Amino acid sequence: MSLDAVLAKIDETLPEALERLYAILRIPSISTDPAFKAECDRAADWMVEELRRLGFTTSKRPTKGHPMVVGLSEGPAQSTAPHLLFYGHYDVQPADPLELWDRDPFDPALEETPTGTVIRGRGTSDDKGQYMTFLEACRAWKAVHGALPCKLTIFLEGEEESGSKNMIPFLQDNAEELTADLALISDTALFQSKTPAIVTMLRGLVKEEITIHAASRDLHSGFYGGIARNPIRVLSGLLAGLQDEDGRITLPGFYDGVEDLSNELQAQWEALNFDHNGFLGGVGLSVPAGETGRTPLEMIWSRPSCDITGIWGGYTGEGFKTVLPAEAHAKISFRLAPGQDPAQIRAAFRAYITAGLPADCRVSFIDHPASPASQMSIAKPAFETARRALGAEWGEDAAFIGCGGSIPIAGHFKDYLGMDTMLIGFSKDDDGLHSPNEKYDLESFRKGTRSWARILNDLSTQGQ
Amino acid sequence: MSLDAVLAKIDETLPEALERLYAILRIPSISTDPAFKAECDRAADWMVEELRRLGFTTSKRPTKGHPMVVGLSEGPAQSTAPHLLFYGHYDVQPADPLELWDRDPFDPALEETPTGTVIRGRGTSDDKGQYMTFLEACRAWKAVHGALPCKLTIFLEGEEESGSKNMIPFLQDNAEELTADLALISDTALFQSKTPAIVTMLRGLVKEEITIHAASRDLHSGFYGGIARNPIRVLSGLLAGLQDEDGRITLPGFYDGVEDLSNELQAQWEALNFDHNGFLGGVGLSVPAGETGRTPLEMIWSRPSCDITGIWGGYTGEGFKTVLPAEAHAKISFRLAPGQDPAQIRAAFRAYITAGLPADCRVSFIDHPASPASQMSIAKPAFETARRALGAEWGEDAAFIGCGGSIPIAGHFKDYLGMDTMLIGFSKDDDGLHSPNEKYDLESFRKGTRSWARILNDLSTQGQ
Repeated sequence: MSLDAVLAKIDETLPEALERLYAILRIPSISTDPAFKAECDRAADWMVEELRRLGFTTSKRPTKGHPMVVGLSEGPAQSTAPHLLFYGHYDVQPADPLELWDRDPFDPALEETPTGTVIRGRGTSDDKGQYMTFLEACRAWKAVHGALPCKLTIFLEGEEESGSKNMIPFLQDNAEELTADLALISDTALFQSKTPAIVTMLRGLVKEEITIHAASRDLHSGFYGGIARNPIRVLSGLLAGLQDEDGRITLPGFYDGVEDLSNELQAQWEALNFDHNGFLGGVGLSVPAGETGRTPLEMIWSRPSCDITGIWGGYTGEGFKTVLPAEAHAKISFRLAPGQDPAQIRAAFRAYITAGLPADCRVSFIDHPASPASQMSIAKPAFETARRALGAEWGEDAAFIGCGGSIPIAGHFKDYLGMDTMLIGFSKDDDGLHSPNEKYDLESFRKGTRSWARILNDLSTQGQ
Repeated sequence: MSLDAVLAKIDETLPEALERLYAILRIPSISTDPAFKAECDRAADWMVEELRRLGFTTSKRPTKGHPMVVGLSEGPAQSTAPHLLFYGHYDVQPADPLELWDRDPFDPALEETPTGTVIRGRGTSDDKGQYMTFLEACRAWKAVHGALPCKLTIFLEGEEESGSKNMIPFLQDNAEELTADLALISDTALFQSKTPAIVTMLRGLVKEEITIHAASRDLHSGFYGGIARNPIRVLSGLLAGLQDEDGRITLPGFYDGVEDLSNELQAQWEALNFDHNGFLGGVGLSVPAGETGRTPLEMIWSRPSCDITGIWGGYTGEGFKTVLPAEAHAKISFRLAPGQDPAQIRAAFRAYITAGLPADCRVSFIDHPASPASQMSIAKPAFETARRALGAEWGEDAAFIGCGGSIPIAGHFKDYLGMDTMLIGFSKDDDGLHSPNEKYDLESFRKGTRSWARILNDLSTQGQ
């Protein structure tokens, strides 16, 4: 069988596939930090070369930020197979705190662990390791058959981890070229680290950065302590007031448009038997800290949240400095549920902060990008086709699940290109995305690659 | 007259005195940061050499931290003048945030400002510029008279800005050598930047550093946002809860032992006509932010305060990182009033934090040094003698005032050596102690030096 030959090829060539993955992992393409701009460019160049070697007609496309990479491979002549677009991002999160890494985050290697062999390094699971599974599936397919089973566009971005500021204009300017029958993305996880899954619900995201300003300069706490406004205290009070004792977010109108789960979805999710004790226990926690009366899966998939992701002010070095700082800062994000309007949430947050300022304080805000939540249309036959293909590879029925993370590109594909997206990834809960010692299981890489070969086969032959 | 000759000498030699001050200011003797250990040692060596040049029998005395410097000069034979001890500290605060300095903090120079000529640099007013006024007064006196008017010990410390961890054992081990009739310290300010003042009340200080621990590693806010405990939120809530809406500190027992001002002191302080609008306005503030119903002078001199001096956690760099951190940190200090027990305040704070921790959180504390408040015994005639000498130099009656800062050494001199302390300094409210662009007015340096010449003269001839 032709598919079997491709699967065998994938297994045989795993060592070479890993070497290719290491090469792109070694490039510290941290998009959020301007110091790594040249590295992002180098990663884009590397991907262009790689796609060309795979036979794609490929170009590096400049933006106001980091470049896009777009490659096209025509399918068989007179094929009725769909035109698929695969999206991935070659940028990664910052690696700090570096001292918590057991190895150089940009010197990837296999490591044996009690739960199996892992590929260790920044970007292994988010997203380089994941998107390389798709490229390796294409490579094996071409090696066996000489051509891909369908027309395929590969579209790689370099700003996913820093807000995709240039994505919407790029989609608008290149709509015809980028519009396919269906988009595929591999930036999500297996359910409970073992069950293959297709994500059909993604939370939105509003990111805010605020600075509370009080005195015109840093003050000595001996001379001003007790009389001068302390911006750290003001900030602490405002942040603490964002949630009530039931874990609900207190911003007026915050829950407008947020609907309870349908009974059907509630039943589906209950059937997943989510092991929230294991999920939390794996990171040293035991008690769900979200809204009272919500299930753990609701908390992470379908309910909005407010997360303080960074705070700083005053003296933070070794020892002690008796200073009352002039400023205090925080980064805050809101994960959004379907129905919430990012602009309205941002406005409500800013109104709350501004109204809560005491005398002698002012606030400044830094705009970070925002995106609404999205829900996929699983009525399309492609979803069921892919679900069966995944089941065949993993020996377990695949699930339709939610995902608490935000992958705004799926919403953008729908809004700007009218294109549906299927999210299929092979990351595991303990992969440490955005954290020190990020890893991707060797099994995820191998079976992920095999899964894409099956999905390409089935979508090409059974339709979308 | 012999005093007039000394005062004239001080004025004539001002340029050379400034060069000597610059030399010690150029040494970045930041005691709290281990990276500057060698610089602290270099500053001690410089002071040893300087005291030797002044004719003091001087030694550098090792401790477990930075060294002490002790110099002795015998007074005139058969003199009835008192033995005085002058204390200062050659260490300085860290200079960060460096980007807020208009010049290299360790490259001092004169600058013309709208309010007069200032000496700019870290340590100019805290405390190198201040203690050098005393040394320059001694130098002028010796130049004119060949010998000092009384027996004098100069005692310089290198750990005042990092908690004086080795002071008490050093005082105990060297009690006989260090005990004099009266201690003098120049580490305080003029009242309202113009009225000479003797500080008779100092607040105590308890310094705490806490870390709130939640998950065992940093988490991705997409996958854990809404379900995982956020230590920044926990920390914010605990810090916000330390004060109520009336600005009172909520720790149980916090105000035990704190007495209201006596009617006499209240009247004295009222007579000072403190310009709190000017005091706050000078740093961009307008409204006293302390306890409801207390006067501004009470807030900064005699009431305890709680100050958050540093906070950090999560991602604090440029851009945005969707991380739920494993830890959040803060540095907090309490300024204490007479009657408060530092150990009890520390215990109450730790009990409050520990009791307020939600599920899955733990806290760790770092001990920083503590000291009680102190009140001086102004019944000693030396206080009135010095007050008159100051009035003669500044053309305005000197005031007995409080000081919100903490100078624990005054309490230690009393407790371990039975020695009273007189605190006389020439700093101004806008000197920016512990802040960027610290300065010391050239007038403070010149008239401070002249003030010490007068005080040495009067204490030696009119008794202590």
